[in-house]
Amino acid sequence: MSHRSREIRLRTRPEGLPAASDFEFVEVDVPDPDAGQVLVRNEWMSVDPYMRGRMRDEPSYADPWAVGAVMQGGAVGRVVASGDDAFAGGDLVSSNLGWRDLALAPAEAFTKLDPDVENVADYLGVLGMPGHTAYVGLLDLGQPREGETVFVSAAAGAVGSAVGQIAKLRGCRVIGSAGSPEKTAWLVDDLGFDAAIDYRSEDLEAALAEHAPDGIDVYFDNVGHDHLQAALNHMNAHGRVVACGSIAGYNAAEPQPGPNNLSHIVRKRLRVQGFIVSDHADRRSAFLADMRRWLAEGEVRSRQTVVEGLERAPQAFLGLFDGSNVGKMVVRIASE
Amino acid sequence: MSHRSREIRLRTRPEGLPAASDFEFVEVDVPDPDAGQVLVRNEWMSVDPYMRGRMRDEPSYADPWAVGAVMQGGAVGRVVASGDDAFAGGDLVSSNLGWRDLALAPAEAFTKLDPDVENVADYLGVLGMPGHTAYVGLLDLGQPREGETVFVSAAAGAVGSAVGQIAKLRGCRVIGSAGSPEKTAWLVDDLGFDAAIDYRSEDLEAALAEHAPDGIDVYFDNVGHDHLQAALNHMNAHGRVVACGSIAGYNAAEPQPGPNNLSHIVRKRLRVQGFIVSDHADRRSAFLADMRRWLAEGEVRSRQTVVEGLERAPQAFLGLFDGSNVGKMVVRIASE
Repeated sequence: MSHRSREIRLRTRPEGLPAASDFEFVEVDVPDPDAGQVLVRNEWMSVDPYMRGRMRDEPSYADPWAVGAVMQGGAVGRVVASGDDAFAGGDLVSSNLGWRDLALAPAEAFTKLDPDVENVADYLGVLGMPGHTAYVGLLDLGQPREGETVFVSAAAGAVGSAVGQIAKLRGCRVIGSAGSPEKTAWLVDDLGFDAAIDYRSEDLEAALAEHAPDGIDVYFDNVGHDHLQAALNHMNAHGRVVACGSIAGYNAAEPQPGPNNLSHIVRKRLRVQGFIVSDHADRRSAFLADMRRWLAEGEVRSRQTVVEGLERAPQAFLGLFDGSNVGKMVVRIASE
Repeated sequence: MSHRSREIRLRTRPEGLPAASDFEFVEVDVPDPDAGQVLVRNEWMSVDPYMRGRMRDEPSYADPWAVGAVMQGGAVGRVVASGDDAFAGGDLVSSNLGWRDLALAPAEAFTKLDPDVENVADYLGVLGMPGHTAYVGLLDLGQPREGETVFVSAAAGAVGSAVGQIAKLRGCRVIGSAGSPEKTAWLVDDLGFDAAIDYRSEDLEAALAEHAPDGIDVYFDNVGHDHLQAALNHMNAHGRVVACGSIAGYNAAEPQPGPNNLSHIVRKRLRVQGFIVSDHADRRSAFLADMRRWLAEGEVRSRQTVVEGLERAPQAFLGLFDGSNVGKMVVRIASE
């Protein structure tokens, strides 16, 4: 027996901002699982800024997506049928096989999840890759100490909102930047940030001078470019820059010049540390234990922006670049 | 009794490349030392690229030089008269009181030196601040492993030439960049670099592709700008950039845009670590012991470009920015 499924493929490599025409929506038949395989119906899929890099035909930490192939990304779903003893029908699992209704793959491609959480979509956000990224990047690389000042850009996003909340738990002064009054209000009123900067209406330099009067000790950079330049001007000696992403440049057709003040790296003895969360799998269980406890105790809050329907996944992805999401952007593929 | 001395003061803060008119040459009378003071006749003084930063009225790790005041910098000399039991006439000492014939200061301003070295001017170079910088920056921050590839810019300078030689002692493949055929020949033929790039006549990117076919693991950056951009393109995953200086921008009147490829910091999980050697005083004795042994055994070679006469110190300093020096640029103030 085979199963009807829909999947989204990369039709063309975008130049600059991707367009709907770069994606192709296809119906396929998926067979039952062979021995060792598992068939999963995805309920949620993730769209993340890093995916823009995988659309480029450039060497990076992950191979680029092939033109004409189904795309990949985080997904949460339930087992439909299993050819492997480790999985049974109805099991909640995650995989990197998003952008499709049905995922058929060897059992190793799936990770069984504890369904006893308030919101299973959190496994794509605060309990998933973005949360793990925030945890490792802030704690292991940023190493904030109590009383220090942490600045995080794209603070209303999946990673940034977790970074700021963890930093508050560590006793830091936390400043975030985001792109709308709704977002900055959420950061301060709901998440407990000490200050939030609306970079679209405020001058970043002036706002940092106001909100970080003692300078910045840790800058968690999701944006790069103007944000990095402004942060460097306000970093304290021996500060740490956690280089997580530079979304401001992801859609640039031509390479953009970097900050004009990199000399601060020497003068202030800064450490700029780039990282990719997949290098830090050894910290996943510690992260998950801490984060589940923080969530359960209300110390960390999660929020999703939910886009309904697999067919709208490209639109959800593009929304990351105009700031449509508050919290984690997820796509609901099927109801539980 | 007083002693006639000459000193060089900062007359005006330069914009862009300093000119001779930014310096003022003055004769002064220096008294005998009081109790607790030491009077030293400088024999050698250092000119170093970092001094350009001290001419600017900007906050940095050291206070800017005051306009009208005598300048400062590394010097080696002999005690003329001492009001402190720790020093006696004829002692060889170093201080930060260069740019003058006679240095009168509290005893704490001077460090007694072992005169049993081949060339006391080495205390301003390979046995002094530049050597210490190379040692700490390469070994403690760059952490090169045997078989890795190290690229160092301004490799024929005081710091760079020490970096490359220490990296060879650690079993690395070493590539240096310098600004003349004479310099590149010295690096390869005399210092044992595996390759040297004349950045004035060669294309840096193409040369790195040729000489670092397995990529760069440690980039020791003395230059910044185009050198940093080219190095980032050739760095390996988990590479380390030791940010020591960016001489290419020191004389720019306006801030210069940074490299257009900082996204490699995330993609390649690079660590960019800025540092100032004065933070690493705890490593000075280990450095000095190792470097004296390496020098004595011929494992590290030192070379100076000597400018004769205190009155020519400004010219020696300006020579750093057009690459007049091979090895350490020093000024001989008086004969031993």
